[in-house]
Amino acid sequence: MKLSRLGEFGLIKEIQRITYAGRGVRIGIGDDAAWVDNPTGSSLITADLLIEGVHFNLKWTSMFDLGYKSLAVNLSDIAAMGGIPAYAIFSLGIPTHLDSRQILAFYRGVATLAKPSGVSLVGGDTNVAKLLTISVCVIGHAPYAPVRRSTARVGDDIYVTGTLGDAALGLTVLRRDKQALRRTAVRQVLARHHRPTPRLNAGLALARWKLVTAMIDISDGLLQDLGHICESSGIGARVQNDKLPLSKAYRILAGNAGTRYALSGGEDYELLFCARPRNRARILKLARIAKVPMTRIGTCVPALRGVKIVNQLGHPLRVRKKGHDHFIK
Amino acid sequence: MKLSRLGEFGLIKEIQRITYAGRGVRIGIGDDAAWVDNPTGSSLITADLLIEGVHFNLKWTSMFDLGYKSLAVNLSDIAAMGGIPAYAIFSLGIPTHLDSRQILAFYRGVATLAKPSGVSLVGGDTNVAKLLTISVCVIGHAPYAPVRRSTARVGDDIYVTGTLGDAALGLTVLRRDKQALRRTAVRQVLARHHRPTPRLNAGLALARWKLVTAMIDISDGLLQDLGHICESSGIGARVQNDKLPLSKAYRILAGNAGTRYALSGGEDYELLFCARPRNRARILKLARIAKVPMTRIGTCVPALRGVKIVNQLGHPLRVRKKGHDHFIK
Repeated sequence: MKLSRLGEFGLIKEIQRITYAGRGVRIGIGDDAAWVDNPTGSSLITADLLIEGVHFNLKWTSMFDLGYKSLAVNLSDIAAMGGIPAYAIFSLGIPTHLDSRQILAFYRGVATLAKPSGVSLVGGDTNVAKLLTISVCVIGHAPYAPVRRSTARVGDDIYVTGTLGDAALGLTVLRRDKQALRRTAVRQVLARHHRPTPRLNAGLALARWKLVTAMIDISDGLLQDLGHICESSGIGARVQNDKLPLSKAYRILAGNAGTRYALSGGEDYELLFCARPRNRARILKLARIAKVPMTRIGTCVPALRGVKIVNQLGHPLRVRKKGHDHFIK
Repeated sequence: MKLSRLGEFGLIKEIQRITYAGRGVRIGIGDDAAWVDNPTGSSLITADLLIEGVHFNLKWTSMFDLGYKSLAVNLSDIAAMGGIPAYAIFSLGIPTHLDSRQILAFYRGVATLAKPSGVSLVGGDTNVAKLLTISVCVIGHAPYAPVRRSTARVGDDIYVTGTLGDAALGLTVLRRDKQALRRTAVRQVLARHHRPTPRLNAGLALARWKLVTAMIDISDGLLQDLGHICESSGIGARVQNDKLPLSKAYRILAGNAGTRYALSGGEDYELLFCARPRNRARILKLARIAKVPMTRIGTCVPALRGVKIVNQLGHPLRVRKKGHDHFIK
């Protein structure tokens, strides 16, 4: 079957079916990170592969930012499990036109985020390649029970941290007009694209306080990642369009696009989580303590009702694109 | 600086210098695998990045074998630390011309080696890419003190497991003449290329019996990997050319090439280790029990005397190519 028909997530299901998950695998393929036993405890493991031309373009991104972001997207997966990252492995395929100064700028970007996050770079592999290829694996600990995607329940509230859509909007503006960089609002949204903030403290606190029923990080766009929670939890969702948290810069720049980038832009690396309504006050408190905005954007509904975006009157809106699937155009 | 001047191993040293190794890192960048603390014990971590056109060619390799080998080369790194592999993460960049049947053949190859090795596939990432890109990370346990590269001593014996040069010779023969596949000897050496045997039991037993002072797996060629042991241990080495273990098929096919492929062909995935001479009898015994040939091929000498290959009379031989550095042609 053509991959474009099966799709990325169809393929993952097939892989899951034919491969072996032995003893010690508490959470395997299909969540933000795996959770596995080791002889004396447990570990979280996550990995990402970033390829030039698919995930980034050196025209828009500096090597330093690319290093920073490559680590950030993996830390975001650990955050979405409520874990603490500890070790990173970087494998690079390097085109011969890059020189060592550029490669070391990349690793300086990595180190700039690694140090305050308590992450040690412990190894990897370096090779030549036609296109810059970055493979990252991060190992972490789970001091509290990791939060899965598959355990949201009908009636749960749906929350997101931070603001949505900035990264995708920023890239779009930059692509259209490089001069736009002169505007402060553009630089602000682009900063979210270049150096996303993994929500490690928020994720850890949510797991520690046992406040959430399910959690995921938003890498492919709110709607798509909410879709993952819904599918694996066997539920549907209603999201209120007017509740989506948008940054001031987003509001200045979005124009006719409205909430489109917030709904399906991707690369937000915010946390999307579900919680019982009785925990509303405690989540507000935690958000204050962790100094991370947490906005209630919707409700979990029965699966039959699907995943819908509604306006203030409760009427469903049509959304053009659901998010990112690497194999479906 | 141009990467071709700095070289792969120069680059790794620079990366080591600028990145952060925090608490808990027992062995970091620069060995076969990292050895790190987790809150209640320790883990081994290793990673490899394989890119079409650099590490493999789909003309010579089936997707099944490629899956098998991608896991094997990582298990070999765990074997070289004397560890037990447990979990694997596979991230794939997939060109659109491949269909799902081919990708699943790849994962069947992975599963075929994973199951008997006790390795669970626990996650990863799938993407589109122009060239097939395979990134593997394997996490393992270290029930005994992991064996480093840097702890060989002058006077140690040098050993290798199995036979050398088959994989590289096999590929050369096949490239020259596809019809050669009709010959049994060719098929035998090629099998070593397509499905290398990670020496997990041998590595674990050597670590358990505390028989070795240093160990590495041979991926870049005997001379180059011996060079890594020598450099990080601050010693030199004498290898006796006539002692190199060659398979029957290798002897049939090598012709004028003599031991060249055994010395610098690469992709053997045998273990290269050093041991005190007083342990000779115990190593023979272990080899018998583990059913893995272990051949004494040389001696560790002071660093000043360099790494040399000598003939039966003790005269040094000239070797054309030292092995594989991805950035130096």
